[in-house]
Amino acid sequence: MNDSTSRVTGPVRVVGAGLLGASVGLGLRARGVDVLLADASPANLDLAIDYGAGRADDGTAEPALIVVAVPPDLVSSVVRAELAAHPDAVVTDVASVKVAPLSELQTAGSGHADAATDLSRYVGSHPLAGRERGGPSSGRADLFNGRPWVVCARPENDRASVNLVEALILDLGATPIEMETAAHDAAVALVSHTPQIVSSLMAKRLADSTDAALALAGQGLRDVTRIAGSEPELWVQILGANAPAVVEILHAYRDDLDRVLVALGDVGAAGARRSLAEELAGGNVGVSRLPGKHGQDRRFTQLVVLVDDKPGELGRLFTELGEIGVNLEDLRLEHSPGAQVGLAEISVLPEAVQRTVDELGARGWRIAG
Amino acid sequence: MNDSTSRVTGPVRVVGAGLLGASVGLGLRARGVDVLLADASPANLDLAIDYGAGRADDGTAEPALIVVAVPPDLVSSVVRAELAAHPDAVVTDVASVKVAPLSELQTAGSGHADAATDLSRYVGSHPLAGRERGGPSSGRADLFNGRPWVVCARPENDRASVNLVEALILDLGATPIEMETAAHDAAVALVSHTPQIVSSLMAKRLADSTDAALALAGQGLRDVTRIAGSEPELWVQILGANAPAVVEILHAYRDDLDRVLVALGDVGAAGARRSLAEELAGGNVGVSRLPGKHGQDRRFTQLVVLVDDKPGELGRLFTELGEIGVNLEDLRLEHSPGAQVGLAEISVLPEAVQRTVDELGARGWRIAG
Repeated sequence: MNDSTSRVTGPVRVVGAGLLGASVGLGLRARGVDVLLADASPANLDLAIDYGAGRADDGTAEPALIVVAVPPDLVSSVVRAELAAHPDAVVTDVASVKVAPLSELQTAGSGHADAATDLSRYVGSHPLAGRERGGPSSGRADLFNGRPWVVCARPENDRASVNLVEALILDLGATPIEMETAAHDAAVALVSHTPQIVSSLMAKRLADSTDAALALAGQGLRDVTRIAGSEPELWVQILGANAPAVVEILHAYRDDLDRVLVALGDVGAAGARRSLAEELAGGNVGVSRLPGKHGQDRRFTQLVVLVDDKPGELGRLFTELGEIGVNLEDLRLEHSPGAQVGLAEISVLPEAVQRTVDELGARGWRIAG
Repeated sequence: MNDSTSRVTGPVRVVGAGLLGASVGLGLRARGVDVLLADASPANLDLAIDYGAGRADDGTAEPALIVVAVPPDLVSSVVRAELAAHPDAVVTDVASVKVAPLSELQTAGSGHADAATDLSRYVGSHPLAGRERGGPSSGRADLFNGRPWVVCARPENDRASVNLVEALILDLGATPIEMETAAHDAAVALVSHTPQIVSSLMAKRLADSTDAALALAGQGLRDVTRIAGSEPELWVQILGANAPAVVEILHAYRDDLDRVLVALGDVGAAGARRSLAEELAGGNVGVSRLPGKHGQDRRFTQLVVLVDDKPGELGRLFTELGEIGVNLEDLRLEHSPGAQVGLAEISVLPEAVQRTVDELGARGWRIAG
């Protein structure tokens, strides 16, 4: 029984019932698609089935589409096994690196010609979605909703295979973005893997600091180091599988860092301040290129409202903003260490600023800026 | 006419009517304290007066307290001039670096003994507050409310001078934190200056990237690079004035970066993956030491609500959360590039999760995770 709105007709086989596999299963089940689950861990498999991500694959139904959702270092061997076991199925994977698994598949397949080496049926992909927690119990039917999902279609793929993978992506609410395999790995090295290293190494500097110094930390440091909380084991795999692309960017980063160190080593030297200014201005240019909102949206005006640090105050603020009829376009929260108040920075349309200030003031709220 | 609740009695002289000086003036005026303004730029001065930050200093009233709010490289000369011109006043400054101006003052004063060299009346300070925009028109009476404000009291200061500066800080709603001068500069090098460089250099890598790669950027990259939008001119001054402390941290950062580069250069080598894991785990330790909330607060459960990208939807969400009676403990917003929906990650108490999901679902909201 397929939902009339689903593009993909079941059964779809999902191999690996962690966060991503379980979320694919839940999303397809929500559309009525039959999902066959497999996982090397029987406990993981049972848990994913309990959560409604699909049913155990008993081998009686033949899938037309297989989603491999296993850790990066297992992708090529699992994809190969699936291609061999299901000679008519299209196989995709959802790992965050794409060059290394493909090259392993190509190496393993050279000189043969059987189902396992028929890479025209393999279309690698990568959903830009995830959560801090893993495992099937963290899976969500709408995890991919509104997210980009890269499809690394290759010349040897027939169009029907690519279309089937993109149908899956659309069914899960994501946006398919076709990209060459190497371009994908270079892109995630830049927008995801290098930032992870930069953030982790900054955070590592805090490990031996004094509490007094850390008490001065503001939102800037918190933002720079937020992703430093990521799981090392997973990231060693990801970085290891995309090492050449990451190394290239990190070398350029280190060259810039060395220029900053030279300039700061003798600030009075000719050109030192100019060199520093150029590095900082380069950062201005780079951050301005990020699409969508980044930092503060210049179409709106930011107001900072002081919120007493007690339960319900933030909710009361939102409720009263609703009562006032102000459209809140964005919001950031900040707690200062040791302070009895939090700071809620709200973004409103410029024409609503005066009314917001007046009405909130009349209700006893303090506006900081 | 002083407000009965103010600790400081006027007049207070404020030299430099930019963001910080104007905010000091506005904050004191809100408490009824007489504020005498001075600025090297007549236009800036007039603007600050128009905004209500104080009155022009006509020399008829003698201040007991002087706040120097000029760029870092002007601090020592202006403080010296103020000490000389007002031999009974206590002088503080609000620059974000403290060692260099003090040592300039000490050097200039050695061998003399007059009002300008009486550094017992100089108490350096640094409010951890600021906004992305500068200038008097960005000033706010409550800019310092709830913020830490470091006071670098020295043995040669008499306690009355320090108390007067702390009274100012308390009047402005901030929290005074006493710290040694060198410890302050080391602390801000770690929590503010080094993160600025790390963020700017990461953002600089984006400058020459393709739009296709940047379309894959997620919240992690946005967080790491947010402060890279800062003004280069100001930051060249700040970094230049605190170069030794910043260099020390940056060298340790580069040593870690080199370890990562070695490991990624040959991931298969013995110990390479372990070395990577140790760098990432060091980041885990460091970020966990940040006080207050950082990343996601583990006391609460995060739910992601899909918000259509049209005006008023976010406001409706807040209003309805208020109606449901859910205390919203925190919120993050994310727009995926090209998506028609935004993602609002709300933090609620674990016991409120089911009710929130049910009630929002009944009102037509989609919950993503």
